[in-house]
Amino acid sequence: MQLMKASWMEVEDYLRTSKAVLIPIGSVEQHGPNGLLGTDALCPELIAHRAAQQAKMLVGPTFNVGCAQHHLAFAGSITLRPSTMIAAIQDWTASLRRHGFERIYWLNGHGGNIATINAAFAEVYAEMSFQSHAPAQDLYMKLQNWWQLPGVAELCKELYPIGDGMHATASEVAVTYAGYPEAQKQVDMSPRIAPMGEIRHAHAYRQTFADGRIGSDPSQATVEGGERIIQLAAKSLLADFQTFSV
Amino acid sequence: MQLMKASWMEVEDYLRTSKAVLIPIGSVEQHGPNGLLGTDALCPELIAHRAAQQAKMLVGPTFNVGCAQHHLAFAGSITLRPSTMIAAIQDWTASLRRHGFERIYWLNGHGGNIATINAAFAEVYAEMSFQSHAPAQDLYMKLQNWWQLPGVAELCKELYPIGDGMHATASEVAVTYAGYPEAQKQVDMSPRIAPMGEIRHAHAYRQTFADGRIGSDPSQATVEGGERIIQLAAKSLLADFQTFSV
Amino acid sequence: MQLMKASWMEVEDYLRTSKAVLIPIGSVEQHGPNGLLGTDALCPELIAHRAAQQAKMLVGPTFNVGCAQHHLAFAGSITLRPSTMIAAIQDWTASLRRHGFERIYWLNGHGGNIATINAAFAEVYAEMSFQSHAPAQDLYMKLQNWWQLPGVAELCKELYPIGDGMHATASEVAVTYAGYPEAQKQVDMSPRIAPMGEIRHAHAYRQTFADGRIGSDPSQATVEGGERIIQLAAKSLLADFQTFSV
Amino acid sequence: MQLMKASWMEVEDYLRTSKAVLIPIGSVEQHGPNGLLGTDALCPELIAHRAAQQAKMLVGPTFNVGCAQHHLAFAGSITLRPSTMIAAIQDWTASLRRHGFERIYWLNGHGGNIATINAAFAEVYAEMSFQSHAPAQDLYMKLQNWWQLPGVAELCKELYPIGDGMHATASEVAVTYAGYPEAQKQVDMSPRIAPMGEIRHAHAYRQTFADGRIGSDPSQATVEGGERIIQLAAKSLLADFQTFSV
Amino acid sequence: MQLMKASWMEVEDYLRTSKAVLIPIGSVEQHGPNGLLGTDALCPELIAHRAAQQAKMLVGPTFNVGCAQHHLAFAGSITLRPSTMIAAIQDWTASLRRHGFERIYWLNGHGGNIATINAAFAEVYAEMSFQSHAPAQDLYMKLQNWWQLPGVAELCKELYPIGDGMHATASEVAVTYAGYPEAQKQVDMSPRIAPMGEIRHAHAYRQTFADGRIGSDPSQATVEGGERIIQLAAKSLLADFQTFSV
Amino acid sequence: MQLMKASWMEVEDYLRTSKAVLIPIGSVEQHGPNGLLGTDALCPELIAHRAAQQAKMLVGPTFNVGCAQHHLAFAGSITLRPSTMIAAIQDWTASLRRHGFERIYWLNGHGGNIATINAAFAEVYAEMSFQSHAPAQDLYMKLQNWWQLPGVAELCKELYPIGDGMHATASEVAVTYAGYPEAQKQVDMSPRIAPMGEIRHAHAYRQTFADGRIGSDPSQATVEGGERIIQLAAKSLLADFQTFSV
Ligand code: NI
Ligand code: NI
Ligand code: NI
Ligand code: NI
Ligand code: NI
Ligand code: NI
Repeated sequence: MQLMKASWMEVEDYLRTSKAVLIPIGSVEQHGPNGLLGTDALCPELIAHRAAQQAKMLVGPTFNVGCAQHHLAFAGSITLRPSTMIAAIQDWTASLRRHGFERIYWLNGHGGNIATINAAFAEVYAEMSFQSHAPAQDLYMKLQNWWQLPGVAELCKELYPIGDGMHATASEVAVTYAGYPEAQKQVDMSPRIAPMGEIRHAHAYRQTFADGRIGSDPSQATVEGGERIIQLAAKSLLADFQTFSV
Repeated sequence: MQLMKASWMEVEDYLRTSKAVLIPIGSVEQHGPNGLLGTDALCPELIAHRAAQQAKMLVGPTFNVGCAQHHLAFAGSITLRPSTMIAAIQDWTASLRRHGFERIYWLNGHGGNIATINAAFAEVYAEMSFQSHAPAQDLYMKLQNWWQLPGVAELCKELYPIGDGMHATASEVAVTYAGYPEAQKQVDMSPRIAPMGEIRHAHAYRQTFADGRIGSDPSQATVEGGERIIQLAAKSLLADFQTFSV
Repeated sequence: MQLMKASWMEVEDYLRTSKAVLIPIGSVEQHGPNGLLGTDALCPELIAHRAAQQAKMLVGPTFNVGCAQHHLAFAGSITLRPSTMIAAIQDWTASLRRHGFERIYWLNGHGGNIATINAAFAEVYAEMSFQSHAPAQDLYMKLQNWWQLPGVAELCKELYPIGDGMHATASEVAVTYAGYPEAQKQVDMSPRIAPMGEIRHAHAYRQTFADGRIGSDPSQATVEGGERIIQLAAKSLLADFQTFSV
Repeated sequence: MQLMKASWMEVEDYLRTSKAVLIPIGSVEQHGPNGLLGTDALCPELIAHRAAQQAKMLVGPTFNVGCAQHHLAFAGSITLRPSTMIAAIQDWTASLRRHGFERIYWLNGHGGNIATINAAFAEVYAEMSFQSHAPAQDLYMKLQNWWQLPGVAELCKELYPIGDGMHATASEVAVTYAGYPEAQKQVDMSPRIAPMGEIRHAHAYRQTFADGRIGSDPSQATVEGGERIIQLAAKSLLADFQTFSV
Repeated sequence: MQLMKASWMEVEDYLRTSKAVLIPIGSVEQHGPNGLLGTDALCPELIAHRAAQQAKMLVGPTFNVGCAQHHLAFAGSITLRPSTMIAAIQDWTASLRRHGFERIYWLNGHGGNIATINAAFAEVYAEMSFQSHAPAQDLYMKLQNWWQLPGVAELCKELYPIGDGMHATASEVAVTYAGYPEAQKQVDMSPRIAPMGEIRHAHAYRQTFADGRIGSDPSQATVEGGERIIQLAAKSLLADFQTFSV
Repeated sequence: MQLMKASWMEVEDYLRTSKAVLIPIGSVEQHGPNGLLGTDALCPELIAHRAAQQAKMLVGPTFNVGCAQHHLAFAGSITLRPSTMIAAIQDWTASLRRHGFERIYWLNGHGGNIATINAAFAEVYAEMSFQSHAPAQDLYMKLQNWWQLPGVAELCKELYPIGDGMHATASEVAVTYAGYPEAQKQVDMSPRIAPMGEIRHAHAYRQTFADGRIGSDPSQATVEGGERIIQLAAKSLLADFQTFSV
């Protein structure tokens, strides 16, 4: 069930048998010459929505803009400051807990979010930890990167043994192409496989990674490859979410 | 053009001829027994995406969670504190300005956002106003509620002369039904037309508005009605955005 | 009763029969060539103090500096950032609630404050709304612009049918002249009626509105006109406050 | 000149010959059985306004609510959190600097404000200190408690040799009585001279200081005594402000 | 007992008989040509650790970086903004209260910290003061400058009758030399006794105080002098802490 | 060179040939029955100070209190909220940059800090990334956990092949014992090797990890083992720091 398309009564029903909810969390940032700016938000959203078609799982709205300061030298990238993102995750969490949710599963699509999401978890937990008594309503927060769901890395390796890369990967571009075939882009890239390097601020990033990619050749991305990843990831997610829910 | 499905190169191209971008901004909150929790985010998104199919207009990601504290007594509603929302709007704006955007058009779907969006504008402008010299890069921020686009209110009145209402309106539910027909819900509501009243915190809200609606009879919502609203609003939006862009 | 001139024992007495308090809230900002920088704080203060002479109504200290970033290109204007103003309103409210006040009536003198005051209300209410249980002590916040008190707009229109305007209005200048006749200023203004336009940051404001006024001819302001407005507004306020108090 | 009653043009004129401005800064808090809640704001305001009648000195709006958390167990007291007060002082300062003011003289009426005002100065200065180059526009901030203006303590001692006290002092109550004779209150107090003690939070304060006073017998306060203090303090202030202005 | 070298079980034991803890709090900032950057943190730490050897007293970690914005024009100085320092003191206090500590004794080594520490106390107390009911767990916060411990000023005067000074004092440099003899530095200073002056931001500070000292001749500092100060201060501290603990 | 024991002139000298500085960063938190509360701060401090004896490397003050909310159910643990820690790291960084440092090497002693330190880096970098032009002064931030310095994990494995563990590890306890032999503690622990598990808030932590340890048997810790680790880590650190400095 997608929360955005559900009524409050349907969510109230859902809460009678489950206290768990999934939030896709991503980023809006350049993904190289043929990747979509929304890639990191769209990937976990596509996977989660696919999974939600197959079993009972509530998928909340997508937390779409994350930590992308290093991409700001490329047009269209949008970032939150980490301190803003922490505040927003606090508010989302407080809202969900208000309804009785005790388990929040954050399906993440962006490596650059990991630190801040974990910091936000600690910020939320700290409120409880400062109290002498255990909270009346417990809370479990889980961060899961979609590309680390069981089996996914293996499949990506199989599909793109060379040049899957680190950013604007063939895999993630494929996932978005499967989700939005009309958005496929044909762009010549050179070098074929982008360089590797270190990430700091946006000025340095652009100097190191001229077209935005890191270590990848996303021209390999296909709708078919993306569809296979979505199917596998969705199945894997369902199993993991079910374990988490109990 | 949808920013989420564009590459950074496509956005860079767009910037060569326009410095204007549109951000749909909404809320995730109960919309009565047959309305979607995502209504206020989906409406401006649907209208903006429709418009973007018809002419050159860049639509950014949807700012989906807004100010909905008063709805928190209904399952599924999510809110930002206004102070968090101001910080987030600052970050989105700073990111967009980084790329050269000078005109940001916020197409709003939620009455409860208006105050905080305007406060955020003042927070952003204040940074410039504290400086003795005019900013090298100018900035125009516009807040436009979709239901106040020229002609829209008249059409809604024509479609739903009685019981369009104030919250969970027949019009907005219709728009989401047109966008997502599979999400239509048949629910008996009583009274037919919900009561009016004053909005404070969530506890008072639930006492006053038992099923969440304010003054509305959204059972009138149809896909056809919604489609007419989207068409008109999109057309009206395009004209307004073009005026704003120059 | 003016809180500033009362003792704590007198306020404690007052609380035995009323839980309502009024806070005049304004701004310190240019009001054109003959208007006082304090106009927006002085108007609601004068009206509230007048009303408090006529019936039991506790008037708190004036929240004098508000949101005036757009006026900063004119000497003497002072602003809070909206985020600071929200924090301050939270603190004032928490203090007043501490004493048992449950109804806070904010009599506002500045259009530019409206958004931030409403955002502050939402920030305050959100604390309650995040809780599962209704607050032990309830809270009603009301924002009332003095120029929208019943009958006031009609009187202003009668007094200044042409050129009352939008900022540095003849009406508000008249109110301050009635309150502080010694502060009247004779200044030639040209054009007689100032232009209208859009408000953004301070640099743009000064370019659009050369002497600060918007759409007004405040040279019409007289002590007598101001006195009539104060009398009517005070009477109207008393009635509205009494309704709000119960 | 009082900024609140001046026009922006008059302030602009003033700035041609002086870059200094005075801000009365106080608190709204209980001042014992016969003292006014506004005492700490009214005292510096009365003294500053008196001084401004005698020579060229611009007096800004009164920063009326300060740090009074320890008084919250007495009805009518209002506090800012120190962090809010720092933000507000930053904003006032940034606004005044915008107009060209380089010297801001804070005439303080409340001992409990001293720490936070000085912390705010450091917060403001830190922005400059983090920069490698000296600021184009310099800044001098001065905190002056009115009761420490040259000669004032001696006069208070002469007027009230016994029981002037530490809070709700005979002197400060006298100053407000001189300013607002109609607000004088006759209240029996016992003990005649209130106890001394340590200040922590509001609960402890009320236990230690049953009627709010600390070490004082403010029943000695008279209009005549207050008038003598105002005259002396105003004269002393003028001299000090003139020195500061250059 | 030093908390940093204790186990949690040892602290738990300590809490069975005492609810008091001492936190040395200092600054990292230039201390003239022969003084250590860590002086203001090392002095209270050395004194507290010495005292803790002689009787039961728990000494927590040293809060080492404080408010030193005015020293930033000298290499190695590090500052917190006051607002950051307030947040950190809140967190330290909340953590210590969590374990049952009710009395926190802040032994301060830096005059520039005093305002912000007191502001932080008010911020912490305010949380309690806003509540209608007294806190279940009480809290006593004490700020004690080491140089104002009973007897210390007299000893410093005896040791360094001329040129002990205001910053980079002979006394404080002596204390660090006693603690870390290997860190002694021989530097010619001129003038022998540094000038006095006013403190604002870092740019002005460096202009006024060319080598960082204020009014001092720290070349007089010796290990022996420092050792005498530590001994006396530690003894004096123990007595004061014991009084505070009960 | 230790910054805390250096003068500003010595740091100024250092800056003539290096723009790099090292900050030990740790935590104050329970480390099981025989581990020190200061372990995570003391380990990187000991290693850094040892390295600084062997070659030119400036070691700044230890950032001692970090993110330890999950340990708050054990006496003596102190935490910053992540948002506070981010603000503090911003301030330390801004201070160091003020002096010309461009490379800051954070030698970390606590796994729970990693997320927040990385979030803080992003917060700092974001300020630069929002600007259109590259910063005049560049910045490199590096986070290095001491236990991941080249060779260290291998040595720990060699020393404690069984039960080195995840928290309150034999290795880290050994390092502190080598640094502070007098602080060694003999405590019977059962089970010999503590359980593994998941980390959330403090209440859950204490339930899962009864005496605080995770997966470790720190009774194996010896001064000799710790000394070997310090030696190797210091050597490894020097090499890494030298690479980073250039
Ligand atoms: Ni990606
Ligand atoms: Ni709606
Ligand atoms: Ni006005
Ligand atoms: Ni007072
Ligand atoms: Ni010092
Ligand atoms: Ni550890």
